[in-house]
Amino acid sequence: MEWIKDGNLDFLKKRKIEAREEAQKSVAEIIAKVKSDGDQALLDYTRQFDGIGLASILASEADKNEAVRHVPEPVLAAIKQAAKNIYAFHKKQMPKSWTEPAEQGVVLGQKVTPLDSVGVYVPGGTACYPSSVLMGAIPALVAGVKRVVLVSPPQKNGRIADGVFAAANEIGIDEIYQVGGAQAIAALAYGTESIRPVDKIVGPGNLYVMLAKKQVFGDVAIDSLAGPSEIAIVADEASDPAWIAADLLSQAEHDRLSMPILVTVSEAFGKQVEQEVMKQLKDLPRTDIASESVNRQGKIILVSGLSEAAQVINSIAPEHLELATGDPHALLPLIRHAGAIFLGKYSSEPVGDYFAGPNHIIPTNGSARYASPLGVESFIKRSSIIEYSNDALQANGQAIAAFARFEGLEGHARAVEKRMEGAVVHG
Amino acid sequence: MEWIKDGNLDFLKKRKIEAREEAQKSVAEIIAKVKSDGDQALLDYTRQFDGIGLASILASEADKNEAVRHVPEPVLAAIKQAAKNIYAFHKKQMPKSWTEPAEQGVVLGQKVTPLDSVGVYVPGGTACYPSSVLMGAIPALVAGVKRVVLVSPPQKNGRIADGVFAAANEIGIDEIYQVGGAQAIAALAYGTESIRPVDKIVGPGNLYVMLAKKQVFGDVAIDSLAGPSEIAIVADEASDPAWIAADLLSQAEHDRLSMPILVTVSEAFGKQVEQEVMKQLKDLPRTDIASESVNRQGKIILVSGLSEAAQVINSIAPEHLELATGDPHALLPLIRHAGAIFLGKYSSEPVGDYFAGPNHIIPTNGSARYASPLGVESFIKRSSIIEYSNDALQANGQAIAAFARFEGLEGHARAVEKRMEGAVVHG
Repeated sequence: MEWIKDGNLDFLKKRKIEAREEAQKSVAEIIAKVKSDGDQALLDYTRQFDGIGLASILASEADKNEAVRHVPEPVLAAIKQAAKNIYAFHKKQMPKSWTEPAEQGVVLGQKVTPLDSVGVYVPGGTACYPSSVLMGAIPALVAGVKRVVLVSPPQKNGRIADGVFAAANEIGIDEIYQVGGAQAIAALAYGTESIRPVDKIVGPGNLYVMLAKKQVFGDVAIDSLAGPSEIAIVADEASDPAWIAADLLSQAEHDRLSMPILVTVSEAFGKQVEQEVMKQLKDLPRTDIASESVNRQGKIILVSGLSEAAQVINSIAPEHLELATGDPHALLPLIRHAGAIFLGKYSSEPVGDYFAGPNHIIPTNGSARYASPLGVESFIKRSSIIEYSNDALQANGQAIAAFARFEGLEGHARAVEKRMEGAVVHG
Repeated sequence: MEWIKDGNLDFLKKRKIEAREEAQKSVAEIIAKVKSDGDQALLDYTRQFDGIGLASILASEADKNEAVRHVPEPVLAAIKQAAKNIYAFHKKQMPKSWTEPAEQGVVLGQKVTPLDSVGVYVPGGTACYPSSVLMGAIPALVAGVKRVVLVSPPQKNGRIADGVFAAANEIGIDEIYQVGGAQAIAALAYGTESIRPVDKIVGPGNLYVMLAKKQVFGDVAIDSLAGPSEIAIVADEASDPAWIAADLLSQAEHDRLSMPILVTVSEAFGKQVEQEVMKQLKDLPRTDIASESVNRQGKIILVSGLSEAAQVINSIAPEHLELATGDPHALLPLIRHAGAIFLGKYSSEPVGDYFAGPNHIIPTNGSARYASPLGVESFIKRSSIIEYSNDALQANGQAIAAFARFEGLEGHARAVEKRMEGAVVHG
């Protein structure tokens, strides 16, 4: 891990990913092909990229039932409890419609409406992410979205991962398409014979999925552009170095580009954590991935005190932040930019990744500066309500017309003035 | 105006704007140039596109004071009252942080934090939009954003429009840059010698501004991609055809691509409105623009009743919706997709454009299906809070570890299990 003792955070400037023009071009081609050839393009790309000849793009009920049988009972129970917790947390996020009188004769408000349809992308390949199904879909279900669709690439056995089916089954989602990559994003955005288009696409994916989401953005809504993820941990001797090391590694094992960061006031503690990281790395099944992440991106940042620790965290704007100091509540008010904040030494990141209830689809790569975790807010929208009585229009019409006329929009002024002149007749 | 009597809404499919590749390329070039040459690129492009040789990119206090003197007193008063109303409405939108106990030993919550810095784009050219200053900036100020910056292209007199300065002055914004177009977006996203980068860019602009926002999206947040705007009015004999016609024209005069739509159960009423539109068009100062909008995109859609009217509206998902029927409240519950809803015959669109308080930066081009008007929500973000006690971790650790292990993430499982083993020592 790289030690930073002089407060120099220049490494943050290198975080932005420059997508190669080549990748952008092939994504544009894939999107164009799906637009023109529909299902046939999905079948062709699935054969080409996943090596699977699909009989059908829609996953079958039989496949789903078969898949669920392959998931061990304790895992099904954990999925069930996690779903319950995720439901409970997200229900607290639901905003309400309101209307209120403003001045005399004026009622203003906001009407909250769920989106009609949403597509959740669940990554596939060698791994299996039932947790992503729960985290992507439950907030949409809580929001009241009627049509929630899953897409996920087929595995080597020709169907979507067992756990993905099991999680979908738990929350009652049955419109599931066995297609992944940029082609899945294009199908969700523009539709094919099998897949009706959706209004919003959410969920993380690889670089091609991310680039496809950026390209379709504007024709359809997307959640965010996921990049490599981070964990930053502020810790000191109040915590066990072995626990902190394990948490750093839980992030590192995700992805070679992940960034595990320790921020500490104690050089001695930092060294202990570093030793533990190296020790625990050895027998981690995903040691290749985790080692590359730790060696290339791992940081131990030495700070002078809590105030500097908070400054460093706010500059990083990490996806995950653990405050594993003796008094995490003293530090919390200083934190401005972090996606999910884990308080105290027992609140290990995986508690939030799987189980506690808050979402694990969190802004990455510093975008916690301006973005939020996925939530019910991601699946509703607001309409403004404006109701003026005749009296209110008479009282304010002149000001409105003067403003409009000053902007050179005479038609706007006249629309108001016609009502001022005509209100005697039509009032 | 085109009459639609058979319920065929195919015209909606043609709404999407295909940006020419050429325009995308020149925007990419402008962005690259601003990244490499900074201020010099801004000065060069401002000379090239606006025909202005700027002495400074930052607008001067002297220019601002001079500009405000050119704005008539009644307009200043209207700006002041509008600002007050916009503040009052947006204050009701502010979400609150919360933490709550979940199960035993578990506290969950959400911490709401404003963004650090925001750039508001205010269109320029021949027009002048003080209302866009208020609508773009006030929600950010209400959210608590510390640094709110304006950019707007200089006018022929070499400085930003008088009204823009006046509105900025009213709400206390003094970091104002006299630069527009894609170059302004690039400067806000990546910074130059004069302009520090911001975290989010909001506000409508022309095609180049829109394409630039799409290209920088991901490195920085943006509000939405503005396209041509719509008004849809559901009206019948309860309203004066002249008023409805004036409202259609108030949208039409904005832009040749604007779409004014009347939805009505009464063919006779539709014909009266159409006649009024043609009559009022004649002496409208912006008759060229409004005529093109009315003739090319204007629609009168005949429906069988309120239920069909609502269906049509939900398919259009208009930016602005007027419900100018006898009983607009009967129709409101059926409306799912509309940016701003004006209730009753006195609630003319300009009331909302300038004055009432809700935002006038509203999703266009059908994107009200999935997006909201600009608001306080656009300028805050949420961090999740997760706090588990030792007991809570012991109670749930096994389930979490089982879930993680099933996903193939052994490091996640171990991070939890280490705490279960070690909690006696460190508890």
